[in-house]
Amino acid sequence: MNQDKNILVVGTGLIGTSIALGLTAQGLNVFLSDIDATAIDNAIKVSGATRHTNQDISLVIVATPPASTAKVIAAAVKDHPLAVVTDVASVKGSIFRELEQIGITDWDRIVGGHPMAGREVTGAIGAQGNLFLDRPWVIASSELTSSESTAMVEELVKSLGAFPVFRTIDEHDRAVALISHTPQVVASVLAGELMDAEGSYIELAGQGIRDTIRIAGSDSDLWTEILSENSEYISQQLTAVANHLLEFVGALEDGDRESVAARLIKGNLGKDRLPGKHGSSQQSTAILAVRLDDKPGELARLFTVAAQSNVNLEDVRIDHSLGHPTGLVELTVTPTSIEILKPALAAEGFVVIS
Amino acid sequence: MNQDKNILVVGTGLIGTSIALGLTAQGLNVFLSDIDATAIDNAIKVSGATRHTNQDISLVIVATPPASTAKVIAAAVKDHPLAVVTDVASVKGSIFRELEQIGITDWDRIVGGHPMAGREVTGAIGAQGNLFLDRPWVIASSELTSSESTAMVEELVKSLGAFPVFRTIDEHDRAVALISHTPQVVASVLAGELMDAEGSYIELAGQGIRDTIRIAGSDSDLWTEILSENSEYISQQLTAVANHLLEFVGALEDGDRESVAARLIKGNLGKDRLPGKHGSSQQSTAILAVRLDDKPGELARLFTVAAQSNVNLEDVRIDHSLGHPTGLVELTVTPTSIEILKPALAAEGFVVIS
Repeated sequence: MNQDKNILVVGTGLIGTSIALGLTAQGLNVFLSDIDATAIDNAIKVSGATRHTNQDISLVIVATPPASTAKVIAAAVKDHPLAVVTDVASVKGSIFRELEQIGITDWDRIVGGHPMAGREVTGAIGAQGNLFLDRPWVIASSELTSSESTAMVEELVKSLGAFPVFRTIDEHDRAVALISHTPQVVASVLAGELMDAEGSYIELAGQGIRDTIRIAGSDSDLWTEILSENSEYISQQLTAVANHLLEFVGALEDGDRESVAARLIKGNLGKDRLPGKHGSSQQSTAILAVRLDDKPGELARLFTVAAQSNVNLEDVRIDHSLGHPTGLVELTVTPTSIEILKPALAAEGFVVIS
Repeated sequence: MNQDKNILVVGTGLIGTSIALGLTAQGLNVFLSDIDATAIDNAIKVSGATRHTNQDISLVIVATPPASTAKVIAAAVKDHPLAVVTDVASVKGSIFRELEQIGITDWDRIVGGHPMAGREVTGAIGAQGNLFLDRPWVIASSELTSSESTAMVEELVKSLGAFPVFRTIDEHDRAVALISHTPQVVASVLAGELMDAEGSYIELAGQGIRDTIRIAGSDSDLWTEILSENSEYISQQLTAVANHLLEFVGALEDGDRESVAARLIKGNLGKDRLPGKHGSSQQSTAILAVRLDDKPGELARLFTVAAQSNVNLEDVRIDHSLGHPTGLVELTVTPTSIEILKPALAAEGFVVIS
């Protein structure tokens, strides 16, 4: 970023403060504002940025909760007549519609943004300048946004270590409904079924359901807001899922095995469409399971063997069993790596299952 | 197990051959039978067990596919009038109902079993004697099963390193419908939606949906059979999930934020009911994210630091971003461990986000 520019971050929660931190670390002039006096005091301490008073601003980053984002963008456009204004909200359409209702005219200076980071981190105190490192950051502008404004936000995104992904507002909202919001609701609803179940049933739960409902642990306040702002596309997608589940029930009740098999195969193929490591299409991988004593040092010993074998791990899972003091570690590697890693681990005394 | 007993394994796929391997390793007399002449030849080579001809048998383990299990149990009861007969099918009710239809009278010698293992492993060639190590193995008998018969199967289960979990047939089938079969269908259907979606949407997919649909990669032939055998309880459970999804849609469309929040909170609480590590109730954990260069050796270096800090890792995730040659590793640890691990990792040059 240009060192002479003054950047204003409005809203000093986790995302806003992390952006401020990342920018001050580059020696940029960063100013903060927030309606909460305590929040801004903390954010100034954490980020090393300065309280905004009357400085001229070139770039405003609105990092308030989604429900207030449009109003804050509108105020920023008015207060800073030369500034480009962007935001970080995880929904875009509802914000642009509200801006239209407000009667905004300076569309050339408004750039929608959505850094896809911060999921597992809560609280402003946890802000980190490197929160966005290697994360996608969607840039979703209106048709009236100038290319200069978009370029400035692209520069911001890159300077924070994230990588820009360009989408229309509609594409963004449909995409997050599909790949983020709908899975969240499905996981939450499936996890909710456990509240109606016998404890003796739940005791048999293994890694499968554990993965399927992991994101059901997400913050309910934040997600109520996100889901409400993108309710139209989420409702469409959720209705499709519910109907497909009911069709599955029909196939089971009819004993229609061909239909059951076809639906499972569709799931196989759908999963294969997820981007693989490094953005490549998914490569063939294999799982090597290793039994580990549950004590410090065993994982290090395991990964030392993997490193010495020059094998790269695609993924690692630790699978704990009910009531037992050992664990299985599942290593995902390429099929050829298995032939190298398996004897190497066995030679070091590990019990290996592939 | 008593070294004088002759044990017969019927069906030499992955599970049957793994059981044979685990038992021959203890020096037990294990015999095999299979209608497939090639399969049994391979299984004899892999397991070191003997082809069954006319030896007296004390324990029969039926490890054929679920759809043929009842017929094979019935034949075994008839052919081996002094033997206890158990099986390994992942559904129990349909098998016991079929046994009733066949007109079985020797219920005292029949013990239902279900080793909850083998998920990630395919093919008989992958058989391993330690496949069941630290895994739950459900023992689900009828009311007429004798305690001596149950005790013999319990002994078998323990000798293979698994731990026995006692359930009624109905409890077993309801439990697996809830914690295994329904999540499988939900994951498959959700993954199937990706087949109807734009590629540009899927490119934004992150770890959330990746976890939610991981098990959608399961074998469709095997799962068609499993789901068909337990269709009644699965249909009930799936219908509940579908209806709750449609209620969620209703809450979104009505703008009823209280209802949306309540459903998300129910998901939070349901997830918390899953058994934690070591079968304890879930303890409080925190996530530490570490940036890693994508090269062999970095993981080993990371876990060496963890080991030297005497910190035990509850879970490990490797989170790859689209198109970028580095990864974030998420370590799940107790909150107090974070205070130890974070500075230790930083001192070794790791970029840490908590």
